[in-house]
Amino acid sequence: MKRIKLTVAYDGTNYCGWQVQPNGITIEEVLNKKLSKLTGEDIHIIGASRTDSGVHALGNVAVFDTTSTIPPERFAYAINQRLPEDIVVTQSEEVPMDWHPRYQDCIKYYEYHILNRSLPDPLKRLTTSHVSFPLDEAKMQEAANYLIGTHDFKSFCNIRTNTDDTVRTIYSLDVVRDGEEITIYISGNGFLYNMVRIIAGTLIRVGRGFYQPEQVKEILETKERTEAGVTAPPQGLRLAKIKYSSGTCSDSKVHDVNE
Amino acid sequence: MKRIKLTVAYDGTNYCGWQVQPNGITIEEVLNKKLSKLTGEDIHIIGASRTDSGVHALGNVAVFDTTSTIPPERFAYAINQRLPEDIVVTQSEEVPMDWHPRYQDCIKYYEYHILNRSLPDPLKRLTTSHVSFPLDEAKMQEAANYLIGTHDFKSFCNIRTNTDDTVRTIYSLDVVRDGEEITIYISGNGFLYNMVRIIAGTLIRVGRGFYQPEQVKEILETKERTEAGVTAPPQGLRLAKIKYSSGTCSDSKVHDVNE
Repeated sequence: MKRIKLTVAYDGTNYCGWQVQPNGITIEEVLNKKLSKLTGEDIHIIGASRTDSGVHALGNVAVFDTTSTIPPERFAYAINQRLPEDIVVTQSEEVPMDWHPRYQDCIKYYEYHILNRSLPDPLKRLTTSHVSFPLDEAKMQEAANYLIGTHDFKSFCNIRTNTDDTVRTIYSLDVVRDGEEITIYISGNGFLYNMVRIIAGTLIRVGRGFYQPEQVKEILETKERTEAGVTAPPQGLRLAKIKYSSGTCSDSKVHDVNE
Repeated sequence: MKRIKLTVAYDGTNYCGWQVQPNGITIEEVLNKKLSKLTGEDIHIIGASRTDSGVHALGNVAVFDTTSTIPPERFAYAINQRLPEDIVVTQSEEVPMDWHPRYQDCIKYYEYHILNRSLPDPLKRLTTSHVSFPLDEAKMQEAANYLIGTHDFKSFCNIRTNTDDTVRTIYSLDVVRDGEEITIYISGNGFLYNMVRIIAGTLIRVGRGFYQPEQVKEILETKERTEAGVTAPPQGLRLAKIKYSSGTCSDSKVHDVNE
């Protein structure tokens, strides 16, 4: 028996998120089915990030155990032949049997992509969030700076979050404009349910002038979800990569905000 | 009665091209239906470019005649409320009753987008063509230079092209690499059926080393379709804009190769 780690990229548009659920098809379910067929075993993968419906990933991570004789690094190729075009395994490798993608120290890198112009672009509608009102990215960055560091992010998570420990550390939070596109790059040791999208929604409010940048500090201190902005839509969000302290990284080709 | 000119952007993924046809839904059909509903008239638009199934546009052009009292420049807004997300009218304006989008001197600007890396990117699969073998963009440009100017492009059009006049003028043809992406920018006074995709397919062969750049000159001279490369897949192609000699231009926000 050996444990295989997969790095997985996907377009989340047509999936009900990562995690297996009764009401629709998920990334995890497709991977379980295709890996089971490939190995002849009953495979149940364990994912690092259970991304929401419509959210994308370039470097999510998952593991599974197998007795298959397929060389570990060949799994990526073998499974890609069976996967639909919107899911691609970019890497496969063997890891120790006690290596678990959620119980290791890591840095997660997310990106939130905004198309900021009056008209929507049909070619970007599934990978960006369209904001037609002009956004002031300098003010967004000013607000973002209050969120960097270790804080109780209770104001910035979905009220259905099933954890009492809402303290997380954000290592970096950069708001970068490139013409009509604004990207929010965020890295941290872990994120609460909807946390990145609520941060994005709050920063968008700052960018529109509805909040002053320093109000974000107050919102953080109230620890009340109702004080923060709305949850920004899923299609703008992508999990860029996950970097484990063991040294492995799920993708090296993304904007490295923290290195 | 007045004639309204529309500039139309669309994601062609879910359509059987522009032109109304019996076997599937088309861009033209959707616009006809929505404009007819909006005006209460039986609208039949006339498009400038009848793009193929799966091909995108940022600035296709169409006209229709109406007695509606909606101000010409408000049509864009009014129709966008009714259109699906993958079609956006970016501009509307009144033009003279004898203005026809296909019978005016114009420059058409197309782009062919290639993702050139070993693995596909699920987030770009619908808007780029994936080429996993390394491409030499300098050689592609060298080959492209033979195609610039006025030539008989019989070798570079679909054999089902229903015209005897296969002479066209290419004003500019630029092969630009930006990291993993190569974009072929092409402008001309008109293009034959599949011409841009066959040029793209041929340049990709040059980039892989299957053809030498100077062979493209020979292919042009043979006037035999079978000599050129395969028709590159539709999702990489987009009609960027159309610039009419009357001065109007369907989009000013694209790479201006010829200005």
